[in-house]
Amino acid sequence: MVAPLNVGLIGFGNIGTGVLRALATNGALITPRVPHPIQIKRIADLDTTTPRNAPYEPGILTNDVDALLNDPEINVVLELTGTMDFARELIDRALKAKKHVVTANKALLAVHGMDLMRTAVDNKVCLLFEAAVGGGIPLIRTLHQGLAANDIQAIRGIINGTANYILTEMTERQLDFNIALEQAQKLGYAEPDPTFDVEGHDTAHKLAILASLCFNQDIRFEDVAREGITRVTAVDIAFAAELGYTIKLLGIAKRHPDDSVEARVHPTLLPSDSRLASVNGVFNAVRIDGNLTGPVILSGRGAGPDPTASAILSDLMVLASAKAEGGLRREMRLSVATGRKKVRPMDDLLTAYCIRFGMMDRPGAMAQILRALGEHNVSVASIKQPFRQQHQESFAHVLVVTHEAKESDLRASLKNIETLEVNRAEPFVMYIEEMD
Amino acid sequence: MVAPLNVGLIGFGNIGTGVLRALATNGALITPRVPHPIQIKRIADLDTTTPRNAPYEPGILTNDVDALLNDPEINVVLELTGTMDFARELIDRALKAKKHVVTANKALLAVHGMDLMRTAVDNKVCLLFEAAVGGGIPLIRTLHQGLAANDIQAIRGIINGTANYILTEMTERQLDFNIALEQAQKLGYAEPDPTFDVEGHDTAHKLAILASLCFNQDIRFEDVAREGITRVTAVDIAFAAELGYTIKLLGIAKRHPDDSVEARVHPTLLPSDSRLASVNGVFNAVRIDGNLTGPVILSGRGAGPDPTASAILSDLMVLASAKAEGGLRREMRLSVATGRKKVRPMDDLLTAYCIRFGMMDRPGAMAQILRALGEHNVSVASIKQPFRQQHQESFAHVLVVTHEAKESDLRASLKNIETLEVNRAEPFVMYIEEMD
Repeated sequence: MVAPLNVGLIGFGNIGTGVLRALATNGALITPRVPHPIQIKRIADLDTTTPRNAPYEPGILTNDVDALLNDPEINVVLELTGTMDFARELIDRALKAKKHVVTANKALLAVHGMDLMRTAVDNKVCLLFEAAVGGGIPLIRTLHQGLAANDIQAIRGIINGTANYILTEMTERQLDFNIALEQAQKLGYAEPDPTFDVEGHDTAHKLAILASLCFNQDIRFEDVAREGITRVTAVDIAFAAELGYTIKLLGIAKRHPDDSVEARVHPTLLPSDSRLASVNGVFNAVRIDGNLTGPVILSGRGAGPDPTASAILSDLMVLASAKAEGGLRREMRLSVATGRKKVRPMDDLLTAYCIRFGMMDRPGAMAQILRALGEHNVSVASIKQPFRQQHQESFAHVLVVTHEAKESDLRASLKNIETLEVNRAEPFVMYIEEMD
Repeated sequence: MVAPLNVGLIGFGNIGTGVLRALATNGALITPRVPHPIQIKRIADLDTTTPRNAPYEPGILTNDVDALLNDPEINVVLELTGTMDFARELIDRALKAKKHVVTANKALLAVHGMDLMRTAVDNKVCLLFEAAVGGGIPLIRTLHQGLAANDIQAIRGIINGTANYILTEMTERQLDFNIALEQAQKLGYAEPDPTFDVEGHDTAHKLAILASLCFNQDIRFEDVAREGITRVTAVDIAFAAELGYTIKLLGIAKRHPDDSVEARVHPTLLPSDSRLASVNGVFNAVRIDGNLTGPVILSGRGAGPDPTASAILSDLMVLASAKAEGGLRREMRLSVATGRKKVRPMDDLLTAYCIRFGMMDRPGAMAQILRALGEHNVSVASIKQPFRQQHQESFAHVLVVTHEAKESDLRASLKNIETLEVNRAEPFVMYIEEMD
């Protein structure tokens, strides 16, 4: 009998349960595809009593994480705790004990990923994380292998299903943000505290991981400029649609000729006939522009126990093959560029904007705002005053689309505008991303 | 100095030249990503004199393919001859000489792929072919690795850029097939003899490869039912659009509960808001439905020297890593199911159809056709008589959409219809594929 790949699972929640269920469902098909069968040998979780909707030997569940980490027969630690410091320590210990690690912990990877990868390399083991970005879409492996010969110039993605569901509902049914959010919460697509998703943290975590792999730089969460979707209104969406754009929460990372990397997450106006604009609901999609391939787009379900289990099992299958090959399987291109990075300041960004102003509704008010923009070289492409607040006759929203301008110029002009008497609300800036 | 991965290139045409150019352009980026540098050591081609648009040492170009195959220092043979029997013999000899083989030869693989894979396994070397399907889209590796834990239920794709370009032009600009074809030929998207692309051979080749990998069966070109796009008219497209459908040349392969596989290529009506319907021009896209992931869609440029070079180089990079690991890298799931297959007869297909009849334009003619359909349990969902041939007053085209029916019933009814006096042309059958 062939020795199994022994997996120690830490964190027996929704995803861990999904992995066990998927192994039970697809095991007969997975086993002949790998040289060593995949076996969950131990499971550690604080909660050892709540029944889980998955088959497992009760004896393998323990609350003693040390017993799992110290078990010399465990080849792989599967970290699914959803924690930060605790997970970091676990993974660090596992790698130093020469165990491979598989994790879906994007928040951890976006902050400490490079350090952990360095530890993995030093200990000649693998740290794999296909499930960290894009759920069931095999994004990480595509970057490491399928597109490995390319100089990747840009990566742009809709990588948070919650935000995309909310924006899709707002767009298709003219809902306000709060109504769409409530609906997402009722359907289980949004957490009771939705901050993480709707403020763009999750997208920024994933973008940091993708950008560091694409550009071989140590891009972390803190390097990603970020604005969430909470201020987007149905009016913004309708105005964008009139101009031929669709609003998405987009993660954008690009490398410039001087090797600097821009990385940003914000409400973005995409041409409505562009390939990413039609990605709706909880679907994720990522567009990667390689210098040989041109645009390659991958899309699918970005979350949920089954898609995530698919990604985790693909990592475990790689490790089962590696075991047969006598140890470490060198994944091409695993970036370990600890410390090496050149983040492009947002001030240097050159792009077109869509800005919503809230101002006094009186003659000359708009002129003052346009003058302030013009004084900082921000030239205007179109203007729209979509409606008047009925209960507040002296107040008007105005949407302004600019030509390309430097972010520093835009911000300087906005600073001036905020001192104007006619300005009555913090201007809301969205970004325009031209693409096909 | 680390020993290189020595590649012997056979066939120095458009694609081979593209590979050399890509290596020159991206070499500085590829080399640190692999443990052994990739070196084109020898090139064999009958034409050793025509200048190529790529940098290479003139001394490595030879017309002596045996010298290349017999060179013990060559680790990998890159077969880009575009031939059938000759390529088969080359690959067979290379594998038996314990050389890995990389090829983009889909026509060969669709006919002899399983036999060659068996030879590769027997000789403990790899046969890789990422470039055979989908150009720069890393489809093969995604099936082998990223989605390896899934029970794949269906694969559906737009995998011929020429046919898709022609149908897109016909759709967007109301062109007839011949005009769109001429245009494609002028732009270099279609060959002077376009049969291979427009009659669906190329799509069927690629579908056979994908189906055999997805379903681990020995599905070959001859097992794929096939109908090209030459009979599609602008009127069909307009009628489909009215009903909410877009016509694409789709390759469809599905596994049924009894493990039988249906594999077919034909003009297909897709819902216009479905994910594949908006894939236009020379772009390819494939939708893979895994039981864990749900639908995963990959799209990008399906042809051209640069995207193809990207795929070939990713195979060579895998082999460079394999070399570091001491030989064979076991790609998960390389199907070698020689001889094992269960092809579902087209007669058993259950689907909805869109059929164009050409009949005498006289009272009762349509009734006769509907009666013949009804007699074979083919029930009609809608009927449209789009126009009368002006020069031929007694002749009318009629488009009929059916509910789901068995292909054998449809064919029996069409046989009857062809004996009717009112029938004046061979009915043209398109297929409806409902999907999101």
